[in-house]
Amino acid sequence: MPKVLFLAELDKPMAEWDLPGHNRWHPEIPAQVGVKPGEDFRVECQEWTDGQIGNTDDAADVAGVDLSRAHVLSGPIAIKGAEPGDLLVVDILDLGPLRSWGYTGIFSRTNGGGFLTDVFPEAQKAVWDFHGIYTDSRHIPGVRFAGLSHPGLIGCAPSEDLLARWNAREQALIATDPGRVPPLALPPLERNAVLGTLKGAARDRVAREAARTIPPREHGGNVDIKNLSCGTRIFFPVYVRDALLSVGDLHFSQGDGEITFCGAIEMAGWIDLGVDVIKGGMARYGITSPVFKPGPVEPRYLEFLTFEGISVEEGRNYYLDATVAYRQAALNAIRYLTHFGYTAEQAYLLLGAAPVEGRIGGVVDIPNACVSLAIPTAIFDRPVLPV
Amino acid sequence: MPKVLFLAELDKPMAEWDLPGHNRWHPEIPAQVGVKPGEDFRVECQEWTDGQIGNTDDAADVAGVDLSRAHVLSGPIAIKGAEPGDLLVVDILDLGPLRSWGYTGIFSRTNGGGFLTDVFPEAQKAVWDFHGIYTDSRHIPGVRFAGLSHPGLIGCAPSEDLLARWNAREQALIATDPGRVPPLALPPLERNAVLGTLKGAARDRVAREAARTIPPREHGGNVDIKNLSCGTRIFFPVYVRDALLSVGDLHFSQGDGEITFCGAIEMAGWIDLGVDVIKGGMARYGITSPVFKPGPVEPRYLEFLTFEGISVEEGRNYYLDATVAYRQAALNAIRYLTHFGYTAEQAYLLLGAAPVEGRIGGVVDIPNACVSLAIPTAIFDRPVLPV
Amino acid sequence: MPKVLFLAELDKPMAEWDLPGHNRWHPEIPAQVGVKPGEDFRVECQEWTDGQIGNTDDAADVAGVDLSRAHVLSGPIAIKGAEPGDLLVVDILDLGPLRSWGYTGIFSRTNGGGFLTDVFPEAQKAVWDFHGIYTDSRHIPGVRFAGLSHPGLIGCAPSEDLLARWNAREQALIATDPGRVPPLALPPLERNAVLGTLKGAARDRVAREAARTIPPREHGGNVDIKNLSCGTRIFFPVYVRDALLSVGDLHFSQGDGEITFCGAIEMAGWIDLGVDVIKGGMARYGITSPVFKPGPVEPRYLEFLTFEGISVEEGRNYYLDATVAYRQAALNAIRYLTHFGYTAEQAYLLLGAAPVEGRIGGVVDIPNACVSLAIPTAIFDRPVLPV
Amino acid sequence: MPKVLFLAELDKPMAEWDLPGHNRWHPEIPAQVGVKPGEDFRVECQEWTDGQIGNTDDAADVAGVDLSRAHVLSGPIAIKGAEPGDLLVVDILDLGPLRSWGYTGIFSRTNGGGFLTDVFPEAQKAVWDFHGIYTDSRHIPGVRFAGLSHPGLIGCAPSEDLLARWNAREQALIATDPGRVPPLALPPLERNAVLGTLKGAARDRVAREAARTIPPREHGGNVDIKNLSCGTRIFFPVYVRDALLSVGDLHFSQGDGEITFCGAIEMAGWIDLGVDVIKGGMARYGITSPVFKPGPVEPRYLEFLTFEGISVEEGRNYYLDATVAYRQAALNAIRYLTHFGYTAEQAYLLLGAAPVEGRIGGVVDIPNACVSLAIPTAIFDRPVLPV
Repeated sequence: MPKVLFLAELDKPMAEWDLPGHNRWHPEIPAQVGVKPGEDFRVECQEWTDGQIGNTDDAADVAGVDLSRAHVLSGPIAIKGAEPGDLLVVDILDLGPLRSWGYTGIFSRTNGGGFLTDVFPEAQKAVWDFHGIYTDSRHIPGVRFAGLSHPGLIGCAPSEDLLARWNAREQALIATDPGRVPPLALPPLERNAVLGTLKGAARDRVAREAARTIPPREHGGNVDIKNLSCGTRIFFPVYVRDALLSVGDLHFSQGDGEITFCGAIEMAGWIDLGVDVIKGGMARYGITSPVFKPGPVEPRYLEFLTFEGISVEEGRNYYLDATVAYRQAALNAIRYLTHFGYTAEQAYLLLGAAPVEGRIGGVVDIPNACVSLAIPTAIFDRPVLPV
Repeated sequence: MPKVLFLAELDKPMAEWDLPGHNRWHPEIPAQVGVKPGEDFRVECQEWTDGQIGNTDDAADVAGVDLSRAHVLSGPIAIKGAEPGDLLVVDILDLGPLRSWGYTGIFSRTNGGGFLTDVFPEAQKAVWDFHGIYTDSRHIPGVRFAGLSHPGLIGCAPSEDLLARWNAREQALIATDPGRVPPLALPPLERNAVLGTLKGAARDRVAREAARTIPPREHGGNVDIKNLSCGTRIFFPVYVRDALLSVGDLHFSQGDGEITFCGAIEMAGWIDLGVDVIKGGMARYGITSPVFKPGPVEPRYLEFLTFEGISVEEGRNYYLDATVAYRQAALNAIRYLTHFGYTAEQAYLLLGAAPVEGRIGGVVDIPNACVSLAIPTAIFDRPVLPV
Repeated sequence: MPKVLFLAELDKPMAEWDLPGHNRWHPEIPAQVGVKPGEDFRVECQEWTDGQIGNTDDAADVAGVDLSRAHVLSGPIAIKGAEPGDLLVVDILDLGPLRSWGYTGIFSRTNGGGFLTDVFPEAQKAVWDFHGIYTDSRHIPGVRFAGLSHPGLIGCAPSEDLLARWNAREQALIATDPGRVPPLALPPLERNAVLGTLKGAARDRVAREAARTIPPREHGGNVDIKNLSCGTRIFFPVYVRDALLSVGDLHFSQGDGEITFCGAIEMAGWIDLGVDVIKGGMARYGITSPVFKPGPVEPRYLEFLTFEGISVEEGRNYYLDATVAYRQAALNAIRYLTHFGYTAEQAYLLLGAAPVEGRIGGVVDIPNACVSLAIPTAIFDRPVLPV
Repeated sequence: MPKVLFLAELDKPMAEWDLPGHNRWHPEIPAQVGVKPGEDFRVECQEWTDGQIGNTDDAADVAGVDLSRAHVLSGPIAIKGAEPGDLLVVDILDLGPLRSWGYTGIFSRTNGGGFLTDVFPEAQKAVWDFHGIYTDSRHIPGVRFAGLSHPGLIGCAPSEDLLARWNAREQALIATDPGRVPPLALPPLERNAVLGTLKGAARDRVAREAARTIPPREHGGNVDIKNLSCGTRIFFPVYVRDALLSVGDLHFSQGDGEITFCGAIEMAGWIDLGVDVIKGGMARYGITSPVFKPGPVEPRYLEFLTFEGISVEEGRNYYLDATVAYRQAALNAIRYLTHFGYTAEQAYLLLGAAPVEGRIGGVVDIPNACVSLAIPTAIFDRPVLPV
């Protein structure tokens, strides 16, 4: 086991940890740990809501989650010698849970919602038990599968300039419909900001400027790509001195899209990383967003049942809209699964949590985009094909 | 080899064939061939433009393609005993080319455009030579890969009612911006409609009502899903008596999204099918769009180089827009490949033609959707990872 | 489709073809067709017994097969410029059947036998119908699978010296037990030798010297490796000028070991090849036997049921004997399958024909070798795991 | 993490542990821990030699290994309710190392030897460092790969009768050449027998009767099958009350055959297991040896370089001898790798340790068996195909 660089204290809020991490993005959040290129190290991570969700059978905790405390991130970690313009090479050597359970939540419409929030406006929860590489849930019977574990969120700190651009463009989007529920975007929020060991006036200023961690951005961040799995090598753009890498939001498993919002199997966990630096790599390869090579040990499935969705919703055509198309594919899959004994909510939770694949079909055949959603049939303990 | 139900006469336009197919969707296009459930049969297909594109080194033919002649479809084929409400089970038993070459085209912006038409407004073409399961192109050196061959377009005829809904909603979309280039959708077009053996007044009326074949719709149709490959079993909703199955637009290979519009490796080919019927299957399983189980013989790749895209374009945030995110992923990949000796046009053609995977990442992390595009590195004859 | 270099006349014995192939190995069998490095070409092949087996329900034809007519090989093909010491690079571009059926046979003990001939001394046969990439058999119900098609036999002609060594060592083996049934090896046999267009005294001398085609040898030949499948690149040692490549014994599918002797699904078929030459490659890489890179489109399976075998037979320990261990694994598998409604003969035929994997486990743990036999469970239409 | 049922004290010999395991097979070795069907639990295991091998650069420790102390097994574990005739279902839920390194050894000819001991008679060692799922070795540069971790040895205690048969048949084999170096088999050996907490006269008697753990047998045991990996479900015959399951000899990785004898990457590690019982399963399914379903998370490789071996050794034909054929394949591979900068010893060590596949080709084509050895090329940091 490599040295542990960052400890998660699961029994208290991150703000009270000996070495607190952070839950906002800002270049001035100080690194308190560092490594040299070539070193392996372990980082522990609290689950993304800062421990607000319990191993229980009701969803009151999901309904009332305070999103201002998310995402709990471990870092920043200084990578010695990395400079703006470099590529930071991060190897995800291994990862696993710190507890033997995780959860999937449907967020209520009034608290952020999810991909199908108009259909499923109420909070719901499924708790998953881990059995080595496998998981099952007392809330979704008849399902058991191997997790494709990954960090939902990993990335380097933005530069001051990049941060300013994030804030400007997101504010511009919010301004188009400020009162929307759920909101179009989340602006900086001082309340509950945890910024490592930053103190005093600097802390207060940074808390007002720092970007929220919800959206993925140019630096990566909360991309929720299930294929950032064990063995993956990621090439990150470096924007600040020492790169300032942070990681969190570990998922035991997730379906493409993480559609229930908190749709992965969220867990507290550990992740082993190795790092290296490619000097001047951003310009040499024209890289402005993370690029990665997935690892070789994904759970593999042969047989999928695949649902198609097109960008037609409630009788209306949306021009090459892959989001609408994926939503239709998900609704088609959910409706199908209700014919096999699942409630629609169970099916929705399952599509968020199991390793389902969301694939772009055609996005040029005007006016309809086509996106497919493929469910590996081996996750079920019974046949689920039409006969 | 199973019996050949439908012959393609590659040296003349479909309108002049002994047994012409069709290039519009309408329930009244008559079936002239039929099979019983349980039978295997072969169907030959002209490439989708009706033979307008040649094995040449310039793209004049692509620039001037007359889209009113597309897609050339083989069918309708009557499946004896299938009735509305049933599921038509179609097994894609095998498929292959009728000629030893195919092509990928970038359509010009003034003739339909493609996914990145603002960046690549001019027509371009790459011709691919087939070597058994492999293909390479004199227009994109250093690339060779096994094709994941599939029909771009397959589906059953719509009912009268379904057709009416298609036409209504697409017309409504067009009406929002009638003069747009490229257009938002393509309305029925009598010119160059080929409707099998339909003659006289019936032919003229149907030609004015029949839906264009470009978009995928509830019945499947032009879904351009590369995983409808050899060995796939598809479950189609049946809307009319005898199902009236048609197929065409065979692809030697295609990347997810078929992003250059005519982005697959388009070919004339043959396809062997088997059919069966599940009586009353639509209601029993709640199926309103095709569902499929992909085949077991996809070319498999271990190593991918994956690019991320988020729904931010030219400094502007788009709310959870997977289409914008995939466009950014594609642009990131193209820019990267230009550092390995490819022109941007070559890279764009390659992403349309090679078996690249477009995967939905997160579509709930407001405001940014994240979509990834994964290129199998084994298609290149040299290393393409950052070092 | 590439040019056809070699035509199989399926309705008559190879000796009567316009361009006959050969059924013995000898450097003096003349090439009548030739290709240049870089060319693609197609070769047609009769099934290995020269058409002695029919699409019937009894095994009389298998019982009476005249092995002196086997294997029917297409070739030799001259590869212009290849010289002894070179490596001949052969790409298996594609292959497929010439008829829509094939067969698997258990050879009788008195006519060569098979791997389990003491248990299954009588001739048996299963006929398989091809449905595109899939096959099923009226003689083994409840089974359907995608074939991993490959040539059972492919290789270059031996040099005069190499041929002499083959004959000497095989004769030495025979001499240890000349009367054994089945025999230990098969010496040259003039009767029914077909040697291309060779005539007269030369033909008679060569017929007496030429090696039988049954065993695999240094040049490859009848290796019966199922993974020499579509897309495979093979590197063959070249022993004679122009390499003199021959191919035959095409299999629609085969299990590792081809245990019933004629255990693959034997078929008449076509194979598309591409060739190239690495000058002086044998010495440069120390290659004295074929080396190959399997193709990327094998039918893939996730779930296997795997049986172990150890080198203990009838209460007796055999020292690290992998052959005995594999025989035990096969017997364990056969016994198991009889609990699922198959006769032992059906199970034996199935293990020869389906893509089962025979893997070396431990071969150092004195005194017992361990070899496993893995059956992909997806070939069955019902569950076959213990419950 | 499940409860830890068995602790390995890595800093002292197993005989001195608080809860010692055992290194012989005998039904009277008492279980001191037990579980109920349905429970998950963790077992820690010392590496197989009882800690005799160090993380050093010379092979003196390998040369002098005292095999009488092997294999160190954790167990027996009583599975409550299991009875003779049942099947014990064991799920390998997960496993991993207890230290961050392991080793591969070539045993000297005078101390047991290995598969190629005539070619490599001297002891050698490679130490491997673990980086999460990956490993590399300072002794074999240019190689890095993901381990396919598995227990080399797992099985249930034999009945008294079965043990008697083992001893009788192995003694019979030894008697055929009692003075052979290395020996043909290893008889019971009282010296250094560790038999859990068994004491006094019973201990002494059992020590004289108990079978050595080296060979695989009907109960499984030291099968050294690399595919008994994470997620595998094994069905074991039960011979004694409570089944008495033991496990050890964990491997970070291994090539098929484990050809250097101590050829896997041997490690101290932990393994999480789940158990269940199928009452009367042995008779119901005709199972007399373990059957298993491999797990879904093997490291997968696309590209292999495969070597063929036939049963001809030093000019002599061996009748359908798969052991000789695999030895030739291994020698062909080793010779090849020496053209890429490796010593023959390094290549030999690598074939034992990396996930190479040893596949039965043809075992019916008299007189030559053909066995192939496939090396995944992705383990190398440079191209290794002939060009």
